[in-house]
Amino acid sequence: MATLGLIEYKDASPQVRAVYDDIMATRKTDWVNNFWKALAHDPVSLKRTWEDVKQIMGPGALDPLTKELIYVAVSATTQCNYCIAAHTVSAQNKGMTDAMFKELMAVVSMANETNRLAAGYQVEIDEQFKK
Amino acid sequence: MATLGLIEYKDASPQVRAVYDDIMATRKTDWVNNFWKALAHDPVSLKRTWEDVKQIMGPGALDPLTKELIYVAVSATTQCNYCIAAHTVSAQNKGMTDAMFKELMAVVSMANETNRLAAGYQVEIDEQFKK
Amino acid sequence: MATLGLIEYKDASPQVRAVYDDIMATRKTDWVNNFWKALAHDPVSLKRTWEDVKQIMGPGALDPLTKELIYVAVSATTQCNYCIAAHTVSAQNKGMTDAMFKELMAVVSMANETNRLAAGYQVEIDEQFKK
Amino acid sequence: MATLGLIEYKDASPQVRAVYDDIMATRKTDWVNNFWKALAHDPVSLKRTWEDVKQIMGPGALDPLTKELIYVAVSATTQCNYCIAAHTVSAQNKGMTDAMFKELMAVVSMANETNRLAAGYQVEIDEQFKK
Amino acid sequence: MATLGLIEYKDASPQVRAVYDDIMATRKTDWVNNFWKALAHDPVSLKRTWEDVKQIMGPGALDPLTKELIYVAVSATTQCNYCIAAHTVSAQNKGMTDAMFKELMAVVSMANETNRLAAGYQVEIDEQFKK
Amino acid sequence: MATLGLIEYKDASPQVRAVYDDIMATRKTDWVNNFWKALAHDPVSLKRTWEDVKQIMGPGALDPLTKELIYVAVSATTQCNYCIAAHTVSAQNKGMTDAMFKELMAVVSMANETNRLAAGYQVEIDEQFKK
Repeated sequence: MATLGLIEYKDASPQVRAVYDDIMATRKTDWVNNFWKALAHDPVSLKRTWEDVKQIMGPGALDPLTKELIYVAVSATTQCNYCIAAHTVSAQNKGMTDAMFKELMAVVSMANETNRLAAGYQVEIDEQFKK
Repeated sequence: MATLGLIEYKDASPQVRAVYDDIMATRKTDWVNNFWKALAHDPVSLKRTWEDVKQIMGPGALDPLTKELIYVAVSATTQCNYCIAAHTVSAQNKGMTDAMFKELMAVVSMANETNRLAAGYQVEIDEQFKK
Repeated sequence: MATLGLIEYKDASPQVRAVYDDIMATRKTDWVNNFWKALAHDPVSLKRTWEDVKQIMGPGALDPLTKELIYVAVSATTQCNYCIAAHTVSAQNKGMTDAMFKELMAVVSMANETNRLAAGYQVEIDEQFKK
Repeated sequence: MATLGLIEYKDASPQVRAVYDDIMATRKTDWVNNFWKALAHDPVSLKRTWEDVKQIMGPGALDPLTKELIYVAVSATTQCNYCIAAHTVSAQNKGMTDAMFKELMAVVSMANETNRLAAGYQVEIDEQFKK
Repeated sequence: MATLGLIEYKDASPQVRAVYDDIMATRKTDWVNNFWKALAHDPVSLKRTWEDVKQIMGPGALDPLTKELIYVAVSATTQCNYCIAAHTVSAQNKGMTDAMFKELMAVVSMANETNRLAAGYQVEIDEQFKK
Repeated sequence: MATLGLIEYKDASPQVRAVYDDIMATRKTDWVNNFWKALAHDPVSLKRTWEDVKQIMGPGALDPLTKELIYVAVSATTQCNYCIAAHTVSAQNKGMTDAMFKELMAVVSMANETNRLAAGYQVEIDEQFKK
C-alpha cells in the first residue's frame, strides 16, 4: 500500500542498512517499522530524518517520555492514523502508563476545543501575554 | 475585536463572577484573561469549560507542567495565535524554562513533519502496532 | 497587505465590475468586501468562485442561515481569521442571534474535542455506521 | 484496534454503566457506540464528555439537527473518519435527508476552499467586520 | 462505504453520464473514479466541481504536472487518504517520476515543520515581507 | 512579539553568525529574516533546520521555484500567516509571476475543497489507486 513499497533489511543497500542499524541500536529493537522502510526509497531523506529524530528525541531539558507524549499529542491533533499507532506504542515503551495516556488524551482534546473557542470568539491577545 | 466583547469583572453577573473568582483562586492570580472574559457572554459554557479545564489540568499521572506543554504543542499545531500566546506564558508560570520551550518546539515541528511523510508515503500500520 | 492588493470598484474592469454588481445585488449591499477585491486580480477565479458561492449558499433543503452557520463552523475549525470575521457578520445579517452564535461555538469546539478523542483512542468504526 | 480496547456493557463497572444507561436513554437507543466504549476506560472523562455533549447538543436556539449538521461539518473538515461515519448516521436519525446532506457537503467544501484563498491572498479584515 | 453509495455509469442518468463522458474524454481514460461516482448523487455539485477542476487544472502559467504536485502536497498536509491515493496516481500519469515524488514529500514535510516553528515562536512578519 | 525575541546579527554568537552567513550566501541576500532570528535562540535547531532546508530546497528533479510553490501551498493550507508572507516573497524572488501565483491559489483552494468532499462522502479508495 505504501506508494513506493517498503524496503526490507535483506533488500536494502549498505547506505540504507547503515541507517536501519543505527535505528535499531538507538531504540534497542531488532526490527525497523514501516515508516522507515517506506522512506528508505529516498536514502538521503531517510538519513536526514533519522538524524533529526535522534537529535531531537533524546534526553534533554525534557525527558524522552515527555517528548513522546508530545508526539502523540500532535499526531492525534493532525489525525495521522499511522503516527498515532506507532507513537502510542513508542510512548508505552518509554514508560507511558494507561493513566498517563488517558490524561494525555484529555488534555489534547480539551486543547483542540478551546483553540476553536478562542478563534471563533475572535479573542484578542492580552497585553500580559505579549513579550 | 472579540465577537461579543469582553465582560470585565466589575460588569459581571454574580454567576460569572463566581467562575472568575474560582479561576483566580485556582491559578493564584489577580486577573482573568480575555479568553474567559469573551466566553463569559455564555455563562453556562464559561462554567462548563472552566470546570473541564480545572478537572483536566491539575496534577495526576502527568504533572501540570507536562500538561501545559501538551497544550502548547496542540496550539502550535493548529496555529491558534491566542492560544500559543496564552499557554506559553502559562507553561512558563508552571516552570517551563527556555531550554524546555526550545525542545518542545523541536518535537512539535518534527512531529508535524513526519506526520505528513507517513501520510504522503501511504505507510500501512505495522502489525506490531495494532492491539 | 493583500498579496496583489485590492481592486476597488472605481478601478475595476467591466468584467470585474459585472461580478461586483452581482455580488451587491444578490447580497443587497452597497459594498464589496476585501476577499472579492483581492481575488479580483484573477477575474476568471473571481467569477467562478462567486458563481459557486451563489449556487451553494442560496435557499434549499437547508436555509441560508444554516449554511452560514456551517461556514462559520468550518472557519473556526481551520482558524481562518478573515473568514471568521466575515462570516460571523454574514450570519448575523442572515438572522444569527447571539444565542445561536454561542451554541454554534459550543458545538464547534465540542466537535473538535471529540474528533481528537476518537483519533487518539484509535476507535474502530462500528458496523452499524457502515453503509 | 482501539488503544485500550472497548468496554462492553456486560463488563462495565456500575460507574460506567450509569453513563451508558444515560446515553441510551437520552438517545433512545439500545446500544452504545465504540467511541463511548473506548473512552469508558477513563470513567471520569467518559462522564465529563457525555455530560458536556448532553448539555450542548440538546434543543436550544439551534435545533438538534442543525447542531448535528455542524458536527458533521467539523468532522469532514478535520478528516476524522470515525466521526464522519458516526455523526452522519446521527444526523440522519435526527432528520437529515439526503438533500440536506448534499447541501451540507457543498457548503463545507466551499468553505474550506475560500478559507485558503483568504489566507493565501493575505486578505486584511475589512473595518466593517471589526466589532 | 460511501455515504450515499456510488453511481456506476450503467446506472447513471443522462445528466450524470454527460459529466462522466467529459471526465473520461478530458483525462483520456475509460473509467471514472469513486470520488465522482460518490458525488454523482448530487448532479449539480458533480457538474460544478468537475467544471471547476477542468478550468483550474489545465495548462497555464503552471503546467498540469506542477498543479498535480500541488494537489498531492495539499492532500498530504490535510491527511486525506483518498486524495493522496488518487492524486499520486494522477501525478504519475502526468509525468511525476519517483525522484520528483520523493522531493515533493521532502518539501511538504519540511514546510509543515517550519510552519509550526514560525507559529510556536510567535514570529512577527518582517517589514520586507509586507506589501 | 517573538517568544524569546530575535537575535540580530550584531548580537549573535560566532556559532549563530556562521549559520546567518550561510543563509545569506546561499540565498544571495544581505539580511536574515525573523524566522531564523527567532530560532537562533536554539543554535542547534537553527543549524539543523537550515541544513535541512538547504538540502531540500535546492535544484533537483524539481526546480527551486516549484519547490517554493509547494511551500506556499502548504502554508496556505495550514493558515500560517508568517509562512505565507515569507514564502510568497521567496517564490517571487525565484521567478513566480502573478499569473503563476493566481493559478497556485486556485489549485490549493480547489484541493482543500475536494479533500473534504472525499472525506465527507466517505469515498473508498479505488482498487486502481492501490499499489
